[in-house]
Amino acid sequence: MRTMAVIGTGLIGTSVALAVSRRGVTVHLADRDPAAARTAAALGAGVTDAPAEPVDLAVIAVPPSQVGAVLAEAQQRGLAETYTDVASVKAGPERAALSRAPDPHRYIGGHPLAGRERSGPLAARADLFRGRNWVLTPSRLTAADAFDRALELVALCEAVPVVMRSQDHDAAVAVTSHVPHLMASLMAARLREGPADLPSLAGQGLRDATRIAGGDSRLWGDILQANAPAIAGVLKDLHTDLSRLVPALDALARPGGGSGRDRGMRTLVDLLDRGISGLAEIPDTRPGAARGGPRVRVAVADRPGELARLLAAAAEAGVAADDAGVESVSPAGDPAVPGFVVRFTVPPRTADRLVAVLDAGGWDVVREREEDRDPTEELDRDLDLDRDLDGVLLADTVRSGRRPQ
Amino acid sequence: MRTMAVIGTGLIGTSVALAVSRRGVTVHLADRDPAAARTAAALGAGVTDAPAEPVDLAVIAVPPSQVGAVLAEAQQRGLAETYTDVASVKAGPERAALSRAPDPHRYIGGHPLAGRERSGPLAARADLFRGRNWVLTPSRLTAADAFDRALELVALCEAVPVVMRSQDHDAAVAVTSHVPHLMASLMAARLREGPADLPSLAGQGLRDATRIAGGDSRLWGDILQANAPAIAGVLKDLHTDLSRLVPALDALARPGGGSGRDRGMRTLVDLLDRGISGLAEIPDTRPGAARGGPRVRVAVADRPGELARLLAAAAEAGVAADDAGVESVSPAGDPAVPGFVVRFTVPPRTADRLVAVLDAGGWDVVREREEDRDPTEELDRDLDLDRDLDGVLLADTVRSGRRPQ
Repeated sequence: MRTMAVIGTGLIGTSVALAVSRRGVTVHLADRDPAAARTAAALGAGVTDAPAEPVDLAVIAVPPSQVGAVLAEAQQRGLAETYTDVASVKAGPERAALSRAPDPHRYIGGHPLAGRERSGPLAARADLFRGRNWVLTPSRLTAADAFDRALELVALCEAVPVVMRSQDHDAAVAVTSHVPHLMASLMAARLREGPADLPSLAGQGLRDATRIAGGDSRLWGDILQANAPAIAGVLKDLHTDLSRLVPALDALARPGGGSGRDRGMRTLVDLLDRGISGLAEIPDTRPGAARGGPRVRVAVADRPGELARLLAAAAEAGVAADDAGVESVSPAGDPAVPGFVVRFTVPPRTADRLVAVLDAGGWDVVREREEDRDPTEELDRDLDLDRDLDGVLLADTVRSGRRPQ
Repeated sequence: MRTMAVIGTGLIGTSVALAVSRRGVTVHLADRDPAAARTAAALGAGVTDAPAEPVDLAVIAVPPSQVGAVLAEAQQRGLAETYTDVASVKAGPERAALSRAPDPHRYIGGHPLAGRERSGPLAARADLFRGRNWVLTPSRLTAADAFDRALELVALCEAVPVVMRSQDHDAAVAVTSHVPHLMASLMAARLREGPADLPSLAGQGLRDATRIAGGDSRLWGDILQANAPAIAGVLKDLHTDLSRLVPALDALARPGGGSGRDRGMRTLVDLLDRGISGLAEIPDTRPGAARGGPRVRVAVADRPGELARLLAAAAEAGVAADDAGVESVSPAGDPAVPGFVVRFTVPPRTADRLVAVLDAGGWDVVREREEDRDPTEELDRDLDLDRDLDGVLLADTVRSGRRPQ
């Protein structure tokens, strides 16, 4: 790929342009607002003049409802050999391409799973897509070379291609993105009607749970409308869920209670458990979540401040306490010799560094080999570790959700 | 305050103990699991032996339903002069104190708005409460010295005391914490029923929106049950909201549509707007949200890569592109001299550093005086700045939610 066009130089379009420009591709930038295209160019994302001949690939980075029209217009003037888009809804743009575009064979839908809290070209980053999934939705007409160009684009952006049907994509984003957005909006709307003291009680959990409600309402209206049938289905299910949950809470609210109260509690705990098990469906990409990484074990004496001294030493090696767990209180299996074994689960190179630092500090440290590990055993230990000594934490914050049912 | 007891050495209890130990207070640690108390002691949080005489203040850091029993038992054996707790529900513990505790005058409810993703003593931090709100809920019987001791505790933990009635607290947390948790559970539960491709489409937005569902289900059952009446009320309102939203989506899903479709879109956009305005109720504590800070303006020529060069220079001064906005495309007011003015809104000392670094780098930089600023003008500019060039970003991520209606 030598040349590309990007139509729409917002965050995503400009980030794509920055990523491929770095790899030597000449990028022609366009936006309905010429100042936005110039801003992207001033960031080094490409040039604002039109290409003299058709580019290899045009990336259409505009809202879902406009993809079809922009594609048709670009194909009419022969902007590119092949076309893709980056809209977060895929069936509608595909239908528009099949029905309206002069050459639907040369189009393939795309949706990179990346973004930032800020929009606009100034928020763009060349590495925005690194390691992120990038869904490609070939239609029944998509030609092999359009598919290949899109795959090349994904590779240039260092993203991971995921191929699926546009309808499957839309059914999935209804659950993963659109309905969570609407529910966040419903909850955030309630904040205006709460007690005056309410802002004093807003913690990080609320901030996280509602933040997605902050998008531009017209743009989100456009996105949600484009996926209305799938969203309506999920909302109906949630409505039914709530119809069951409200009586459970009512029963728990009743003084005395009895069997209704027990049933209410079972309904409630069952829902919470289903939620926890649903969280397991979300791939965890937190840096600290290197569950499969090597383990480093350190024996620690049962003396005041000794664990704090170990955690400080680990911090020197760049390892946070979040990666640590206390594994046992009697390492020698002898209750007469109290102490702790602290386990750090970290990526391999971090483990090397950690062992070196702790070894130099005189700690009793062992690096466990991968093959020695029994996953079941680890799960059991984690469970023991994670049991809640404090009820209070969880009211304000969250858990990693790894707890099995 | 010279001596304290902490009952329940989980994350919160141990963090309290670490914070006050640092200030020279002797802390006696206890937990139903002796190993947890020993872990806290080994972290330097205090000692595990019982106090020889009543301590100045006992902090009860156990789940809400157990506060009353633990308080009564501790008062019976004369553990402390005064008592507080840290449970996230306050009316129930207060009722239990008034009805069951030997001396309800010496108890005041408390709820620090702090937590971490991990629980247990090893996740504790001495600075967990720094700058966080700590709600205190004096009952009609709470004596002045109990109130004073609790205020002293909050000060030692460097938190901010917020005084409210226990019932108001519980009504507010139903909206800010409990219902968001239940909605996150409902959404997370749906993830198990979605298409097989679903995990490929899980982005940061979903992760944030559902993370609070990850708490221990029995403990959360305990918390939610303790606040069931308030929660039931909010859930009923949400149920009604959904009853209106589903037909709107159904109308948008119908091909053709007409006036029903327009009405559906209005309902949808109205909800999204109400959500956005509700977000404004949440105090924003992001470091980058220093909207009131000084502004630094830099003139930038309209040349490829020039903005990128400026952002790199700002990064040297520790200022991220997130704090920057392009303010104008014609700084001289003359369209014949194209260029940009970039505005950085940063805390005062950062502004000093930024000006020094950019000045040394030869940039045309001006630090604006606070009194020169017109807030209305700034809002307009922000709006212009934030307009969405890309529809795609918002499908996967979020906005700061500052946009006015």
